[in-house]
Parts: sequence; C-alpha cells; structure tokens
Amino acid sequence: MVGNAEIELAHWLADAAGAIARRYFRQAIDVDTKPDRSPVTIADREAEATMRAAIEQRFPDDGILGEEFGAVRSDARRVWVLDPIDGTVSFIAGIPLFGILIALVTDGTPALGIIDQPISRERWLGAAGQATNRNGVPVRTRTCGTIDAASLYATSPDMFGADQAAFARLKAAVKTTRFGADCYAYAQLASGFVDLVVEAGLKPYDYCALAPVIAGAGGSITDWHGNALGLQSDGRVIAAGDPVLAAQARVVLAARP
Amino acid sequence: MVGNAEIELAHWLADAAGAIARRYFRQAIDVDTKPDRSPVTIADREAEATMRAAIEQRFPDDGILGEEFGAVRSDARRVWVLDPIDGTVSFIAGIPLFGILIALVTDGTPALGIIDQPISRERWLGAAGQATNRNGVPVRTRTCGTIDAASLYATSPDMFGADQAAFARLKAAVKTTRFGADCYAYAQLASGFVDLVVEAGLKPYDYCALAPVIAGAGGSITDWHGNALGLQSDGRVIAAGDPVLAAQARVVLAARP
Repeated sequence: MVGNAEIELAHWLADAAGAIARRYFRQAIDVDTKPDRSPVTIADREAEATMRAAIEQRFPDDGILGEEFGAVRSDARRVWVLDPIDGTVSFIAGIPLFGILIALVTDGTPALGIIDQPISRERWLGAAGQATNRNGVPVRTRTCGTIDAASLYATSPDMFGADQAAFARLKAAVKTTRFGADCYAYAQLASGFVDLVVEAGLKPYDYCALAPVIAGAGGSITDWHGNALGLQSDGRVIAAGDPVLAAQARVVLAARP
Repeated sequence: MVGNAEIELAHWLADAAGAIARRYFRQAIDVDTKPDRSPVTIADREAEATMRAAIEQRFPDDGILGEEFGAVRSDARRVWVLDPIDGTVSFIAGIPLFGILIALVTDGTPALGIIDQPISRERWLGAAGQATNRNGVPVRTRTCGTIDAASLYATSPDMFGADQAAFARLKAAVKTTRFGADCYAYAQLASGFVDLVVEAGLKPYDYCALAPVIAGAGGSITDWHGNALGLQSDGRVIAAGDPVLAAQARVVLAARP
C-alpha cells in the first residue's frame, strides 16, 4: 500500500530534483557519454544523489534503483525507482520535455509514480487506488474509437531494434505518429491529449513511474503482450487511453507477415 | 529595411496570436484534416485571421502569405509571411513546442522574423542588422568543432521523401539526432543549445521567420545548396550554429554513393 508518508516523500524528491534541474537547465555544463552511448550531466547525477540520500534517511530499509548510481537492496519488498532526468538529450538541447521520474514499486508492482516537468512546473502523480492528478487536479485519459483515429508518440524511431517492422505496421495503422516527447507524451496521454505511446528498449527507471500515472487516469499500460509492468519487464511498453485501443495496438504489433 | 513600426506590428501580431493559442490549448477542440493531410483547428484559423486583419489595417499595401488563408498581393515589395501555429500536431497533443511564426519579406529577402512560444512565453526576434534576442536578451549560436560532435534536430523522419538517403547519411555523421521539436529546435539553435536543424518539404511560412532569427544570432541558414532562403526556395533547409558546420552538412547531404 501507498500511504501519505510515501506520497509526501515522493513530492519532496520531485521538488528537490526539480530545483537542481532548473539550476542547470540552459547553462554551459559538460555532457559525458555513458558506455551505452547515452548522455549524462552533473544535473542527472546531483539530482539522483539528492533523492537517494533522502530515501536512505526516511526509509532506510527500502531498496533503490536509479539510472545513474544503480541498485541497493534491490531484493527489498519496496524499491524506489528513479530517473533523475528522463530525456537528457532534450535537457541539454534546452527543450523542456524532459522529466523527473519517481516510482515506488511494492512487491514487484509499481504502486506510486510521479512524472515531473520542472520548467513548466507540471507534476502528474499516480498512486494505487487513487485518481491520477496533475498539479492536484484529477486527469483522465480519453477513449479512441478505432486505431486509425489514434495519435501515436514514441521517443525515437531508432529505439525499436528487432521490432522495427512491428512499429512500422503500427505507424501505418494510426492517424499521426510523432517522435521526441520522452515521458511528457505519457503525461499528455494521462491528461487525455494523446491516444497511444509505444516504445521499446526502456529500462525500469524509464517505465515504472509511468504505470501508476496512466492506470490511475483510466488508461492501460502493459508490455507488448498485455502483461502488467514490473521490474522484470522486457522494456517494450504500450500505453493507451483505453483498453480497447491497447488491444488493437497489440494485435498490429504482433501480426506476422 | 525594417523599422520600428514593422517590429512593433510584429510584436502585436505575436501577442494577439499567442492569446488565441493559449485560449484553445488543451481544450476540447475539433481537428480538421486538410487536403495535404495536415491537421488544422479553430486556433490556427482565428490566430491567422486576427493577424491578417491587423496587417491590412496598418500596412494595406503589403502582401500577406499565410498557411491557412493563402496569399494576397504576393507581388508586393513587402510580404508578411505567417504560420499561426507551426506544429499543430504538438498543439493538439498538449505539447508546448508549437510556435507562432511571423516574417516580413522585403524584396524577396526575409528581413524580420519572430518565433513565439505562447505557453512558455518565449519570443525570439531577429531583424536585419540587429542581434537576435529572446525576450529582449541577445542570444548567440554556438560553434561546433566537427560534425561528429553535432546535435541534429528535424521535425519528423518522414519529411524527407526522395532525400531520405541523404538525411540518413547526415544522421550517421552526427553525434545525436532527435525529432519532433518543430520551430522550437531552430529557436534553441539560435540560443546556442542545438547545433544543426536539417529539414525538407517546408513551405515559406515554415521557414521565412526562421532566417532572420538564426542569421541575427550568428548562425547560418540556407537551402541544401547553400543559397539564401526566399519565397521561391525549394523547402529544404539547413540551419547551423556556424558556417563551417553548415558546409560540412552540405557535403554529407550532397555526397553520391
């Protein structure tokens, strides 16, 4: 269960990480390239270190999994999953679509999630058993009659690897496809302005926070087979405003030529 | 020449169009599909109509070319070129990367340009003979040593048509490629956070406003052959933070296998 103490801490973490992101946004900062070729900056590292220290102090028995500093106590019943800056490429390009992602995973299930955009000062909070809210105001996904009317987002056309052909089929089936919004596309899906986000190659710190936000707004978020997301998912994600659209997307993605 | 009266009017137009865009942003509005399959809303139409009426009143001899309502007096020595909402797909998805584009083209040359983002309330203004500014503060592009260190943006991987292979070569030559930022990527290039924007299939109302903004910030903006942009350009654009990088990009794009 997610209680007020956990939600309070999650807000504190987002506030602290957001202040750090704002301080470094559009400043001349070094960009390092990690072994996986993705970029990282002092803002990512400082934001994650700050959040980890606060979790250690408040809930020292909980596990932590973060993008920059890895895992501790990952076999704990509760694990905080952190991406200090999801969309570092946008961050270093001065484009305010990056987000701070904070999740609490209990018994393997994402039970609390925050998507925070610190420049526009928008925060989506989803928690098991509660309606998702944006800056305190409840939001709802929208339904989409059929897949040919759907707007689809993905961060990059280059994220699909061996699933390139499957994604191409989906792109051909929907009305519009756009790239580049990172976690902000999921936030807009929760708010009812985007129908579908389909991605691959994600890590737990990319998707765990999204699940409670989307689910609590009435949407569907699963892997490409329709399974609930957890720490062991394969990194392929379908988020949809309604379960009917999600099922249509799964059929298109799974089709064999 | 661009005088204070023209700059004053351009600011007025951006203020008026911005107020309209803010009013309809994230509201339930109808989305129509134009013959070219691109979307349009009441916000696009109302913003352009408002700007056209103001130009007719203030400078009745000037020509006007707008995305939604076409051309009048297009053989005039001065033509205002308007895109009320560049990035309508982002606009209807609730993503604040769309922009209002306003240009004054004199004797065929874009002499004044505004890129306005009405949600973040950022405005880039470029005018012949002046330094480009963002909300009144001068901005500069950055230089990029070699093309393999460059960050590249384009609105969509699907905009290149017959130039798909050329763009693929460029993508392979740069450090990072991202999609989806519309005019906002050019604005960030002017501000020194993006190195290269390369696109194709643009219309005069997509690119005329960009030229004075980029040039006045110290950057280079031409067609793919290195020619200055004007009303008759072929819609293929290279914007770069410095002319050396622009030349490197032209070589890669032009290479024959």
